[in-house]
This record gives sequence, structure tokens and C-alpha cells, in this order.
Amino acid sequence: MANKVKIGVLGAGRIGRLHITNLVQSVPAAEVVAVADPFLNDDTIAFLQGLGIVNYSKEPQDIFSNPEIDAVFVCTSTDAHAEMIRRAAEAGKHVFCEKPIHTDLDKIREAIAATEKAGVKLQVGFVRRFDHNHKKVHDVVASGRLGAPHLVKVCSRDPDHQPMSYIETSGGIFLDMTIHDFDMVRYLSGSEVTEVCAYGAALSGEGYDKYGDVDTAIIMLKFENGALGVIDNSRASHYGYDQRTEVHCDKGCVQVSNDLDDQAMISTREGVEISKPTWFFLERYNNAFIQEAKDFTDAILHDTAVPVGAKDGLMPVAIAKAAAKSFQEGRPVKLSEILN
Amino acid sequence: MANKVKIGVLGAGRIGRLHITNLVQSVPAAEVVAVADPFLNDDTIAFLQGLGIVNYSKEPQDIFSNPEIDAVFVCTSTDAHAEMIRRAAEAGKHVFCEKPIHTDLDKIREAIAATEKAGVKLQVGFVRRFDHNHKKVHDVVASGRLGAPHLVKVCSRDPDHQPMSYIETSGGIFLDMTIHDFDMVRYLSGSEVTEVCAYGAALSGEGYDKYGDVDTAIIMLKFENGALGVIDNSRASHYGYDQRTEVHCDKGCVQVSNDLDDQAMISTREGVEISKPTWFFLERYNNAFIQEAKDFTDAILHDTAVPVGAKDGLMPVAIAKAAAKSFQEGRPVKLSEILN
Amino acid sequence: MANKVKIGVLGAGRIGRLHITNLVQSVPAAEVVAVADPFLNDDTIAFLQGLGIVNYSKEPQDIFSNPEIDAVFVCTSTDAHAEMIRRAAEAGKHVFCEKPIHTDLDKIREAIAATEKAGVKLQVGFVRRFDHNHKKVHDVVASGRLGAPHLVKVCSRDPDHQPMSYIETSGGIFLDMTIHDFDMVRYLSGSEVTEVCAYGAALSGEGYDKYGDVDTAIIMLKFENGALGVIDNSRASHYGYDQRTEVHCDKGCVQVSNDLDDQAMISTREGVEISKPTWFFLERYNNAFIQEAKDFTDAILHDTAVPVGAKDGLMPVAIAKAAAKSFQEGRPVKLSEILN
Amino acid sequence: MANKVKIGVLGAGRIGRLHITNLVQSVPAAEVVAVADPFLNDDTIAFLQGLGIVNYSKEPQDIFSNPEIDAVFVCTSTDAHAEMIRRAAEAGKHVFCEKPIHTDLDKIREAIAATEKAGVKLQVGFVRRFDHNHKKVHDVVASGRLGAPHLVKVCSRDPDHQPMSYIETSGGIFLDMTIHDFDMVRYLSGSEVTEVCAYGAALSGEGYDKYGDVDTAIIMLKFENGALGVIDNSRASHYGYDQRTEVHCDKGCVQVSNDLDDQAMISTREGVEISKPTWFFLERYNNAFIQEAKDFTDAILHDTAVPVGAKDGLMPVAIAKAAAKSFQEGRPVKLSEILN
Repeated sequence: MANKVKIGVLGAGRIGRLHITNLVQSVPAAEVVAVADPFLNDDTIAFLQGLGIVNYSKEPQDIFSNPEIDAVFVCTSTDAHAEMIRRAAEAGKHVFCEKPIHTDLDKIREAIAATEKAGVKLQVGFVRRFDHNHKKVHDVVASGRLGAPHLVKVCSRDPDHQPMSYIETSGGIFLDMTIHDFDMVRYLSGSEVTEVCAYGAALSGEGYDKYGDVDTAIIMLKFENGALGVIDNSRASHYGYDQRTEVHCDKGCVQVSNDLDDQAMISTREGVEISKPTWFFLERYNNAFIQEAKDFTDAILHDTAVPVGAKDGLMPVAIAKAAAKSFQEGRPVKLSEILN
Repeated sequence: MANKVKIGVLGAGRIGRLHITNLVQSVPAAEVVAVADPFLNDDTIAFLQGLGIVNYSKEPQDIFSNPEIDAVFVCTSTDAHAEMIRRAAEAGKHVFCEKPIHTDLDKIREAIAATEKAGVKLQVGFVRRFDHNHKKVHDVVASGRLGAPHLVKVCSRDPDHQPMSYIETSGGIFLDMTIHDFDMVRYLSGSEVTEVCAYGAALSGEGYDKYGDVDTAIIMLKFENGALGVIDNSRASHYGYDQRTEVHCDKGCVQVSNDLDDQAMISTREGVEISKPTWFFLERYNNAFIQEAKDFTDAILHDTAVPVGAKDGLMPVAIAKAAAKSFQEGRPVKLSEILN
Repeated sequence: MANKVKIGVLGAGRIGRLHITNLVQSVPAAEVVAVADPFLNDDTIAFLQGLGIVNYSKEPQDIFSNPEIDAVFVCTSTDAHAEMIRRAAEAGKHVFCEKPIHTDLDKIREAIAATEKAGVKLQVGFVRRFDHNHKKVHDVVASGRLGAPHLVKVCSRDPDHQPMSYIETSGGIFLDMTIHDFDMVRYLSGSEVTEVCAYGAALSGEGYDKYGDVDTAIIMLKFENGALGVIDNSRASHYGYDQRTEVHCDKGCVQVSNDLDDQAMISTREGVEISKPTWFFLERYNNAFIQEAKDFTDAILHDTAVPVGAKDGLMPVAIAKAAAKSFQEGRPVKLSEILN
Repeated sequence: MANKVKIGVLGAGRIGRLHITNLVQSVPAAEVVAVADPFLNDDTIAFLQGLGIVNYSKEPQDIFSNPEIDAVFVCTSTDAHAEMIRRAAEAGKHVFCEKPIHTDLDKIREAIAATEKAGVKLQVGFVRRFDHNHKKVHDVVASGRLGAPHLVKVCSRDPDHQPMSYIETSGGIFLDMTIHDFDMVRYLSGSEVTEVCAYGAALSGEGYDKYGDVDTAIIMLKFENGALGVIDNSRASHYGYDQRTEVHCDKGCVQVSNDLDDQAMISTREGVEISKPTWFFLERYNNAFIQEAKDFTDAILHDTAVPVGAKDGLMPVAIAKAAAKSFQEGRPVKLSEILN
């Protein structure tokens, strides 16, 4: 294969543009040869032309049928992900798909089966694995220097409320927000989740309860390797994107605090002020988005395993479904209830 | 009343000696006039004489029948606490009692009833409320400046394993260790616990499972005010006494990290080293032990409410029992199941 | 003017390549149309082609005589900077020049005069002003919220020794290394230096003294506004690029610590380990290099003042000469001794 | 010798009461048998009686002639220190003397000579050596693990201005305030100061310049072992007692930041707030005052060397005089100019 991966991008909304920009500017092994977006408009075209991309259309099929394209980035609306994966696979393209693949486990399995049948790679966009902080926790645990993991902790809070119009169709906090944390605990523990128990509450007065949803949640987890875990979530920290992880092991603990805007400390008679955490995922995970794209192109160029594969696309959805069921039924739910 | 509270101490073991030393050296409003310890020996006598205490015996009754004594510190073995409270109350003495009052709720209620009938004060030794860090979290939450509490988090890990001989009779992690954290979440949330769900595991290989006990636990909690909480415990951090608390509220978050041995940072080619958390409760809560004794004597001298009262002695035991039941039965347990 | 600044780059060594990469990948308002490097070789050509740059030569004149080019980046060896500025100015090109312009004050003045005569902009590459940390200190001081500055402190230590071959021709620590800190104290204090007193020592055993140079230095400074300052330097921290600044003002203090590789803390029985500062200027000031280039192109496009101008190119060299004189003569030296 | 050191205290002002309280409550090996204070009044008597001290007078001679007394704490006004040391020595008492012994070097030498002639111990109250933070820096440097010291840095700022009535007779910032830092750099470097160069300025508008004094100072130092040092001072930090030390060595750096009131972090939309440094020396060095007294009594009981001896009493005064001379004459001053 050549030294560049030729990429077609499906979807040029917020996350699609993020990937397109990164691929063009920061991933030397990538070349964006075409973009398809059913909502293509003048604004999108100006954006693409500004990056030197001249091949665009409203029709995904233009990507699939382009023989020059090696790989596809699926950045469409979530409900189209699984179908796009299947069609890309059938066209012989490798696939990078934003999370989640689908909210229906069977649809996920079908999409995965299509990539396996076609022999193409499938990477799922759990971007936090590529963050320098969480990766450090993972690497220390995986190195074994602290012994077996006992407690896996994730604190994950968005900076501010989403519009209720978004919440209405979001699928609920566990599928929409905690899903990243479910991926994170699998990544950090190096083990599969076997059971969850979820508490949730709508405390903000924003109206999450109108949609059967919550703004605050805590989820306990059990892992195959015996470790226990806990995730706490809030839809609105107000102070920034609070993303802390910690693993307490047999011989000690590794934990990471947040990246801050800067390292300043201002001391006066009134008090001492330090800087806030970076505001949201664009600020916090900017380098991680670049890194996941680099790793994807590397895996294609060297025909090695992708860092976040098919099972990583399936399991967090299953865990989210178990958490939602646990919350609704007020009891612990085993993953086996969901997966079988 | 005079400007000193005259105190008799029951029990001169580790915790008794700690209180005696503090009362003598650091609590100006206290005067230790007598000590009774059934295991009184030459070593104890030397300790007491070194502090200028010349009135000691093996007989608690010597304390109760001493008309000079205003108040009693109950520092005996746990199973005698409730009886000592009752006898002290019947003798008209105010009582400071180490935690827990008893592991049987009815015995606790009887002890409390005795103090109420006698009109004497009862303070329970949940010392962490007097720690400058946890108190700061409490005070910020109680001030209302952050709005209502949403998430209450306690991380509480002992530095090292206790001998299995201790574990055998400890009553289990929830009653022995987490009980302090159950008090803490009530203190920080300003609300009562209504339900708990506990996960536990024996992961250290030290043999906790032989006694039906665990070395690692996570407990989720619901509060009357709607907030959710979580506690994580380990019997052995290895790096020191890990005691962190955090409350995420409607408008922001307050959290405290550990006190460290010192503020040093050593930077070399090999890495950057900071100092460890203070090792255990004697180091971490030394000032807090002094403060709780000062507050107790102040409450007596000015006839004001004690800062940690009868209900504070009862509820953590009830929560611990609910947690133990949850762990054993694999389901959330409401406090109403325990209290009625 | 168009919405892109067309740029020619002089010099494609380490710093030249850094600027070329940033201009191509991260500065949307810049277009690198040509590069000239007298040492142009196959490796350089491959680098340029990889970035899509096809116009390159060994001859600076090719840049100056190219009518398409709006602005020039001077990234040649230091001794050619002043001449390149003059020739660029005479060709009517705006100039971005790496620091220092020259080690001879008259040569600097001549270069500046050429740009003034030609009416072109001159920006000098004091990149640290664009670092998020130092900029925060500057902004807080400049806002006036802390009152007038009293103490300006800069700690600046390189991670490791340079080869002695480099030291031999470096011009000495004050001109080679501290020059950045002399710019920083002017930037942070908002005032001009009037006097310096320098201590230096060769303590590492690496042989700096063979060249009349030192590896360790402290420089005190006085400012026109009455503030005092101090810089401490080491050629080898061993733990990374130690770049801390602090300004103590009439009402309080603002200080910044180092960016670290990540926010991890690893706690074990042996101790607590945090991550090291980023290793050197490429890691620490990567975003700052991008920002200074963006600000340069913005100043051209909108015909506004450059953020680091001609006087900023002259004064740090004068201060460095005063410091060197102070070190050699063992006495404080006024800037007026150097500038007149 | 017995297992208690019998102590007479001269002076029961602020610092005298501090020592008396510590000796009574926190130094088991000490027994305060008498106190003499020429300004003895009812308030002082009430204070002493509250601590169980019944032997007091206005006459220092009552202390010197008391055969029961082993050692004397000199807590009088500074100008009487040297004479009190001499008289105590002639009476055969060991001496703990608050700093400085005197502002005249010959008077210091005479006082020291008297203790040497009498064969009694003399400890000087440079209390910061007993602070857990600074001691850690010292111990790491002294251990040799970081190699030879290159840079010794002390930041020392009082929280707030003293009354001008105090400044008028204080002897100036170098003798009054920086003297502690001159002790600190000797302690941390393990070497003697050979030269200083001082900058100072009156920037606060409080009127220090009316008394020829300054509120802001920076002092560079050279040490016998080749290391360089720098101290920065402010009379008013406004945010607390800023006491940071740092030693950069051949293989790395050890530094300490301030103790804070607590470990809280409060995060809201408006910003992130941490707690202030402890306010002043009573809060910051409380444990250090106790430790220096313990070490003094230990040295007497075991007839070992005191931790801060005669030379430690002399040298900081000499350095302060050199710094004052440097400030006045605008040039570096060698210690040999002062000491000979």
C-alpha cells in the first residue's frame, strides 16, 4: 500500500468537520479525497474548499463507489452509523465510526459481521483512550507495577446542560453520556463488566425527568477480574469538563486530575485562585482526536490491529442498556441479562 | 458551673490514652481527675503519673460514684460502650463516647434514652467532622453558596491491613471502617440516608473472605434531599491514610485532597516525587481529636448542644447494617428495612 | 490585501522547519510560497515536498525578488539575521525574525532603521510571550487588578547541557539563554530595565569555564517603574524545561508553574510520583510558536501593530550585554552604560 | 542529670508566652520553674497561673541565682539578649536565646565567649530550621542524592505591614526580617556566605523610605562551596506568610511550597478557589517552635550539640550587615569586609 491512506468522510457536521480538519492538518498519513453530506450547503462547501477539498457531494454512494478511497470516516447521525458501516464494508473500505455504532445490539452485531466478512478494519471513536491522562492511568495499570486492579473510578461531568430538545432524543444519560465512561472502565480495568447497579436523579430543575432522564448518576460495576468500579456523572459541572480517572490496585493507586487552562495561581487577600479545567471535549480531547486518527491510518498502513475494535463498539452499548435497566428496575443487572 | 470540666476517663488503651493526653495538654477547659481501666497495669500507671494523674483504679464505679466528676469519656472496648453510657447517665455525668455506641440498634436506643432521661449530654466520637478539610467541605455546602448537593463522594482507605485476629471480631468492614464514612456523608449532605447498595470483594489475598468480610467496597447511597452518594473503601492503600471528600452541588463542586507529610517536590531525571499523605488517623486527625474534646467541654460549660449527638450515634450503625444486608443479599436496601 | 499572507522562508534548519510546518498546517492565514536555504539538500527537499512546497532554492535573493511574496521569515544563522532583515525591508517585505536580531547593537539599529524606512513590519521571535502561562501572568499584571508590580521573578532552566562545541560560539549564557528571560521581565513588568547585577558560576564540571562561560546564573534587575526583578538560570535541570514566572504586586501575587506531561499521580508504599515538566521548548512552546505566527499574519492582514516589535528586538540584547559586563566586572551595570 | 530540664524564662511578652506555653504543654522533658519579666503585670500573672507557674518576679537575677534552674530562655527585648546570655552563662545556666543575639557583632562575640568560658550550651532561636518543609529541603540536599547545590532560593514575605512605629526601631529589613532567610540559606546550602548584593525599594506607599528602609528586597549571595543564592522579600504579601525554599543541585531540584489552611478546592463557573497559605509565623511555625524547644532540652539531657549554635547566631547578623551596606553603597559586599 502507498504511504497515505485515502479517506472519504461521511457527514460534515460538528464532529465530521473536526475529523476532516485533523486529517488534513495533523495526520500526515491521511489524505481526504472526498466528503459526502446529505445536508451539504454553501457553508460546508466553503469549509471544505478552505481545506483544499474539492470533491464533495450529498450522496454517500459517491464515497462507497470511489475506487480511490481506502477508508471511510462515519460521522453521520447516530442512527445511520450501522448502515454506513455495512455499506462501507461491502465496498471494501476500512471504517472509522463515531460512537455509538447503534443503540440496538443486533444492529451493531450485523455491522460488525459485515466488516468481518469483508475483511476490513473497524475502529470505533472512543477518543478518550487517546488522552494523555487516561492513557497514563491505563499504561501504569497494564504494566503490572501496581499489581491487580481493585477499584476503578471515573468522574465524568459535562460543563453545562444540553438543550432539552437534544435530551429528548438522546437515548438517556447512560447511552448518551456514560457510554464513554463504560468504555473507559473497560480500558482501565483491562477486564469485562459483569454487573452494574445504577442510581440516577433529576436534580437540576432543567426538566430531564420529563423525558424519563436524569442529570445526575452514579453507577457501580463489577468486573470479570474481581475488581469493583464506580462512575459518577453530572450533566452540568458549571466549572468545565471534569474528567478524572483513578485505579486503586493491590500495591497502590494511579489517578489523574484535569488539564487546566493554564498553570496560574493568583493570590490576594480575598483568596487564592487557580485556573479552571478546559471547558469541554473540543479543548480537552483535541490531541486525542488527532491521535486516534493517526492510529487508525497506521493500523491500515501496517495492517495491524486497530486500537479500539468491534467488541469495544459493542460492549459499552450493552453496559449502558444494563445501567438503564438497573436504574428503571431499582436492582443490580447482570450483563448476561442484556447480552443473551 | 466552674470554668473547668472535671472528667473521668473509662479505658486507658490506645484511644483512651490519646484522649487523656489531649485533655491534659491541649484542652484548657478540661481537668482529668480520675481514670478507670480494668486492665490497669504498671505501664498504664507510669503513663498516667507522667501526666500528673494520680487518681486511677480498675473499677468504673469509682468514676461514676465520684461526685467531683462532671463528665465521662467512654474509651472502653466497644461492647461495653452502651452500658457505660447508661451507668454514667444514671450517675448524672455527661458522656463522650467513642464510636460506635453499640452494634445493636436497640442497645443504642436504650443508652440514648438513659442520657435523655438523666438530662445529660451525649457526644459521639466521630472525629472526622472536626478535621479542617472535611469541615471546610461541610461549611461550604452548608453555606448554600453552591446550591443544593447533588453528589456526595467519600474516598476512605486505611494505609495497611489489620491483623486477621482483629478482622475476625471487627463486625465486618461496614460496621468497623465504613461507619466513619456513613457519618461523613450525613454530615456533608446535611440529609439522612434512605437507601444503600453495597458491592464488596476480598481481593488482597489476606483472607478477609474467611470471615465473610471484604477488603474492598463501594457503597452507593440515596439521601432524603434527593442527592446521591458514593463511598469507596480499601483496607490497604499502602501509601497512607487516603481520606478525600467531595460534594458536587447545583452550582459547582467542593473537594478536599489529603494532607501530606510536607509540601516538598523533588525533581530529577528519573521523575518528580512529592510527599505521601499522612500515614494514619493519629497523624491525620490529631488536631481533630483535640477539637472534638474542646467542643465537648464547651458544650458542657455553656450548656449548648454537642456537635455530634445521639442521632449521630444511631444512624451510622443503621446505615452500616443496611450496607451489610445489601452486600449479602445483592440488592439495594432501604433504611426503613433496618430502622423499623 | 488578500485573505492570505504569502510567505517566503529563509533557512530550513531546525527552527525554520518548525515555522514552515506551523505555517502550512496551523496558520490558515499563511501560505508558504517559497523557501531558500543555502544548505538545501535532498532531506530538506523531501521535507518541503511532504508539505506541498515545490518552490525552493539555495538563494535568498529568490525570495526577495519574488513579487508574490508579502512577508519573510528569517530563520537563518544568527549572524545573518540583520542583513536578511535589511534586504527583506529593501524588497518591501514584512519581516518575522528569529531572536536575536544581532549581538551588535548598531547592527540591530541598522536593521530596524531599514524596516522603518521601508514601512514594513518587523516582528521578533520572542515566542514565550505567546505561551498560555506567561501570557496569563502578563495579562493579570497588565489588568491592574493586583496594583503595581513590586517583584518580577523568572526561573528558566534548560533540561540538559548543550555540546561544548555549541557553547564555544554561543556568545555566553546571557546572550544565548537569558536573552529570552530579559524579554520576559520587560513583558511581565510592563517597564524598561535600568540596571542589572549578575552572578554566574560554572558548577557542572562540563567545562563552561573554558570558554569564559557559566552554567548557573542569577541576575537582579531594576525597572523604570521602581519594581525589582530576579532571574535564575541553569543550563541543566535534568528534569525538564523549568519555566516559571511570578510577579508580586501591591495587592497580591500571580505565578505560574510548569506544564507537565500529564496530570498523573502514582502513589505507592515507596512514595508519590507525579509527571515531569514537558522536556524542552518544542514541547512547551509548540502552541506559542503557532500563535506568534498567527499574530504576525493578522498584523499584516489588518495592518495593526505586531505584538513583539523593533524595540523588543533591541532591548534584550542590550540587557544581556549589561549582564555580561556586570558578571565580568563584579558590579551592577546601568543600561545607560550600554545604550549610549 | 534528671530526666527533666528545669527552665527559667526571661521575658513573658508575645514570644516569651509562646515558649512558656510550648514548654509546659508540649515539651515533656521541660519544666518551667520560674519566669522573670520586668513588665510583669496582672495579665501576665493570670497567664502564668493558668499554666500552673507560681514562681514569677520582675527581676532576672531571681532566675540566675536560682540553683534549681538548669537553663534559661532569653525572650527579652533584643537589645538585652547579649547581656542576658552573659549573665546566664556566668551563673552556669544553659541558654536558649531568641534571634538575633545582638545587632553589634562584638556584643555577639562577647556573649558567645561567655558561654564558651562557662561551658554552657547556647542555642539560637532560628525556628524555621525546625519546620517540616524547610527541613525536608535541607535533608534532601544534605543527603547528597542530588549532588552539590548550585542555586539556593528563598522566598520570604510577611502577610502584612508592621506599624511604622515598629519599623522605626526595627534596624531595617535586612536585620529585622531577612535575617531569618540568611540563616535559612546557610542551613540549606551547608556552606558559608562569602558575598552579597542587595537591591531594595519602598514601593508600598506606607512610608518605609522615611526611615531609610524598604518594603521590597532582593539579595543575591555567593557561597564558599561555589553555589549562588537569592532571597526575595516583601513586607506585605496580603495573602499570607509566603515561605518557599528551593535548592537546585547538580542532579535535580528540591523545593517546597507553602502549607495551606486546608486542602480544599472550590470550583464554580466563576473560577477555582484553593485555600490561602497559613497567615503568619504563629500558624506556620507552631510545630517548629515546639521542636526547637524539644531539641534544646534533648541536647542538655544527653549533653550533645545544640542544633543551632553560636556561629549560627553570629553569621546571619554579619550577612545582614553586609546586605545593608550593599544596599546603601550600590555594590556587592564581601563578608570579609564585615567580619574583620
